[in-house]
Amino acid sequence: MRVTHHDIVEIIRSKRDHGELTDEEIRWALDAYVEGEVADEQVAALLMAVLLNGLSPRELSTWTSAMIDSGERLDLSGLSRPTVDKHSTGGVGDKVSLILAPLVAACGAAVPQLSGRGLGHTGGTLDKLEAIPGWRATLTNEQIVAQLDEVGCVICAAGEGLAPADRKLYALRDVTGTVESIPLISASIMSKKIAEGTASLVLDVKVGVGAFMKNRAHASELARTMVGIGRMHGVSARALLTDMYTPLGRAAGNGLEVTEAIAVLQGGGPRDVIDVTLALADEMLALAGISGEDPAARLADGSAYETYRAMIAAQGGDPDAEIRIAPTIHRVLASADGTLARLDAMGVGVAAWRLGAGRARKEDAVSASAGVLCLVKPGEPVVKGEPILELHTDDESTLPRALAALEGAIDVVDGKVDLPPLILERIDG
Amino acid sequence: MRVTHHDIVEIIRSKRDHGELTDEEIRWALDAYVEGEVADEQVAALLMAVLLNGLSPRELSTWTSAMIDSGERLDLSGLSRPTVDKHSTGGVGDKVSLILAPLVAACGAAVPQLSGRGLGHTGGTLDKLEAIPGWRATLTNEQIVAQLDEVGCVICAAGEGLAPADRKLYALRDVTGTVESIPLISASIMSKKIAEGTASLVLDVKVGVGAFMKNRAHASELARTMVGIGRMHGVSARALLTDMYTPLGRAAGNGLEVTEAIAVLQGGGPRDVIDVTLALADEMLALAGISGEDPAARLADGSAYETYRAMIAAQGGDPDAEIRIAPTIHRVLASADGTLARLDAMGVGVAAWRLGAGRARKEDAVSASAGVLCLVKPGEPVVKGEPILELHTDDESTLPRALAALEGAIDVVDGKVDLPPLILERIDG
Repeated sequence: MRVTHHDIVEIIRSKRDHGELTDEEIRWALDAYVEGEVADEQVAALLMAVLLNGLSPRELSTWTSAMIDSGERLDLSGLSRPTVDKHSTGGVGDKVSLILAPLVAACGAAVPQLSGRGLGHTGGTLDKLEAIPGWRATLTNEQIVAQLDEVGCVICAAGEGLAPADRKLYALRDVTGTVESIPLISASIMSKKIAEGTASLVLDVKVGVGAFMKNRAHASELARTMVGIGRMHGVSARALLTDMYTPLGRAAGNGLEVTEAIAVLQGGGPRDVIDVTLALADEMLALAGISGEDPAARLADGSAYETYRAMIAAQGGDPDAEIRIAPTIHRVLASADGTLARLDAMGVGVAAWRLGAGRARKEDAVSASAGVLCLVKPGEPVVKGEPILELHTDDESTLPRALAALEGAIDVVDGKVDLPPLILERIDG
Repeated sequence: MRVTHHDIVEIIRSKRDHGELTDEEIRWALDAYVEGEVADEQVAALLMAVLLNGLSPRELSTWTSAMIDSGERLDLSGLSRPTVDKHSTGGVGDKVSLILAPLVAACGAAVPQLSGRGLGHTGGTLDKLEAIPGWRATLTNEQIVAQLDEVGCVICAAGEGLAPADRKLYALRDVTGTVESIPLISASIMSKKIAEGTASLVLDVKVGVGAFMKNRAHASELARTMVGIGRMHGVSARALLTDMYTPLGRAAGNGLEVTEAIAVLQGGGPRDVIDVTLALADEMLALAGISGEDPAARLADGSAYETYRAMIAAQGGDPDAEIRIAPTIHRVLASADGTLARLDAMGVGVAAWRLGAGRARKEDAVSASAGVLCLVKPGEPVVKGEPILELHTDDESTLPRALAALEGAIDVVDGKVDLPPLILERIDG
């Protein structure tokens, strides 16, 4: 119950002057913003002060609580299986969710993966699955719970009812230069994940040129901050820092990534995708308290794939439908023999985006078939005149700008190349 | 000429990350804001980043130029006399402008004092002069120039055409906790003073409990910053730091201050008002290049008073009209004998404000007769049962809150009291 009408200017001044806000001030400010009693310009000033002066762990926990309490919180406590989810901070070619959710469900957990769409050079899980004919991202809360009960996993859109304060704050941060704040990013991610009702959560924090976090120290701080918020809200959380210097797997683009994910679920696929998926699965099973299960065996025996098919079918998708191939495919050829030393994740991500796989504005549509296939990965041999990349697009006119994004993105050297480790750090709450 | 459409989010991010903005970025951002192409929330975030990360002297000079160039600039170069103005950062009982403008004009300068209204506990010069029946604050540019030619001084409202960017920015700063920034305060004051067309300017920067700047180091920094902006724009500027621990003179309130100013112009009045006025007059005459004039003699021989009467009459006021006395006068009596050691400027200022002399919102009206008379000043003897203060109001119901503002504002001691110096520092460009 609110007892005091606070003064938003006093709250802004307090944070501006390195003060610590009270729980009541934080809750009042965010509630009043959602209710339209406090103006965009006032919250923009507060967000900039938070970005520059920080939030204490207590302030951050309350800030996150206020965002959760701005909407509904799913109740998954009636499920017979333990719940565990995974969140990735986003990378190029990151199709891990499509494999991981059914894999961990096949091992006995319930995976409630409520997701968003992609913006900029990193794709969104919902955009990828929408390449499957018939599949629908939008479910009611009752449908989510029923699917978790029957199939064990769901990947769907986070409803408007979850953390609406985050939606309003994120839109404001986007236009006011206040996105790049570790506390604000952490509160944004964790408020949605906590509101979705999962009991535990594994965070895949991507680091490198193709990731939001370019710098390992910042990525580590982000991971620790999110794990800390989870602990303060009763959600067991762990994080892996994983490399994003080059695309994950060989495919970047919605339908291309679905095809690659299915290859992994069928026991094949690129080694790096398999390794990251299994490492995350191990963490998820540990948090869910499930022992004695070997996720690699679930990939090999087809049970993860069966769960995937059930998940797609439950959401109206046809798991046997062919994924459409783009009408225009342009090959980027090697100009010399050697070893691929570098294939820049940002270059490939921006190229895929420009080919049609991503959106520049929230309301844009994305192409199901556009994207980039990396025929050669770092460490593999390159043969002069043979293709390194395939650029897929529905619209030939996108090619010049996509190729421009790839300028300087490819290095070929003589001799052996040392590859960086895929998993850089593990952070346990 | 604008050649590039800048991205406001990139500009915000640059300042946020301690970057230095280019001249073009600053000009574009402020122009686009005035034109409504950039939103309040974006400029609010930029202002908070400026407040916390500062502006370099070059950035600040460009910021000020952009504010000046958002409107018109008066051309006073056709006047036969040298132009010089004074700006005070605001204090309790600060009626100096009413005396100083005609005094310096009587010594041969032209004083174009374009002023604002009061907000909060400090009064505004226009509010004070409006206590004179018939006097009008609003003049056209032509009327201003003609009056400077004929009378030598004008005190009137700064027109809407001067630095409109400042008006829009100030309203935004007021609601976003971004007022207290030395560069932003400096740019706001100096843009208006430079746009008014004066060739030179003396700044009276008030320091102490009753002033905006409570702290001498900050006041000194503000003074140096403003003098620096003047230099970069070809306006010779100097500053005096003057004390505002206690009200200046004995009167705080619009009509009460006009009466006190007239007393000084007639050769009487409180010592501290005379001393500050003469010190500022000396600086103004030096900047105007006028030597051989003795301002004290101009007070004594009545020529400053004659110029005052001409100035009031030129703006429709009746210099002989009686200033109305408030119907309710409440006396605050001394409870012991002794010496007045402290009479808190903020306490008196807030009491006068609550009695009706000031406004809480821009659109409020003020009372001409409400205010506080300080019958005893610090250092003077107090006699038990005799009045220390007179509270004047049109509305008896304001008395309890005015008296509450005075709680703890008066200290009486035994023996002698050391008074602080009135003029603390002189800053020369």
